[in-house]
Amino acid sequence: MTETRTVVVERDIAHPPEKLWRALTQPHLIEEWLMKNDFKLAVGHRFNLRGDWGGVLDCEVLEVEPNETLSYSWNFKHDDPAYNLESVVTFTLTATPTGTHLRMEQSGFRPDQKQAFGGAHAGWNQFFAKLDEILARED
Amino acid sequence: MTETRTVVVERDIAHPPEKLWRALTQPHLIEEWLMKNDFKLAVGHRFNLRGDWGGVLDCEVLEVEPNETLSYSWNFKHDDPAYNLESVVTFTLTATPTGTHLRMEQSGFRPDQKQAFGGAHAGWNQFFAKLDEILARED
Repeated sequence: MTETRTVVVERDIAHPPEKLWRALTQPHLIEEWLMKNDFKLAVGHRFNLRGDWGGVLDCEVLEVEPNETLSYSWNFKHDDPAYNLESVVTFTLTATPTGTHLRMEQSGFRPDQKQAFGGAHAGWNQFFAKLDEILARED
Repeated sequence: MTETRTVVVERDIAHPPEKLWRALTQPHLIEEWLMKNDFKLAVGHRFNLRGDWGGVLDCEVLEVEPNETLSYSWNFKHDDPAYNLESVVTFTLTATPTGTHLRMEQSGFRPDQKQAFGGAHAGWNQFFAKLDEILARED
């Protein structure tokens, strides 16, 4: 049994779940807040997330419940085990009186991957700051 | 012989070469405008640039002429040849009456790597926007 760690980032968002769902699942919107991609909303679809500086993540859609749950793998292959990452990202949306509670879990960090774990926390905070911007703009 | 393409981004910067050189070569400053890193200013030093989302570049310092030229490899290994990148980044600093002319060349993109090539152009523009911010702050 391998112990793993999970990054959890939560946000209360002033928009309904349906609107947030579009930002999480439409490729041109995903590109604006996360990365360039060939995402499709279909379980089993394999896709890449591509950073502007040449880095690439290997992903596969694992779970889709419209307006509620989206989960995909988020893998990065590297010879150095400190950087080699096999993780799963799960977004859970819950309607609230003022909009949506968004919970993001990224699981699969090994205990020795402290840098990657800390980096992911910082990264999601930045991604969600951009997500907020495009949600506000789309009103 | 393999034809390759080069991304060139140039900026006129309102600070002297010595100050720009520090931002290009001190790890805590590199982290602020580019990525987390274990850079050292020594030809032959191998280091990584690490994105917050788990991606990692493999680099090696190739050329150092203080306040004038810095060059390092910028490699990304991936099974898909569209993403596998072996490139070299070279910064050239030239003193001007108002500060420094910075020229960045990233060479090594194959003709079939159009996405990576376009992405690199966008990426450097973003990196240099952050570089401008930290140079202004350090006054």
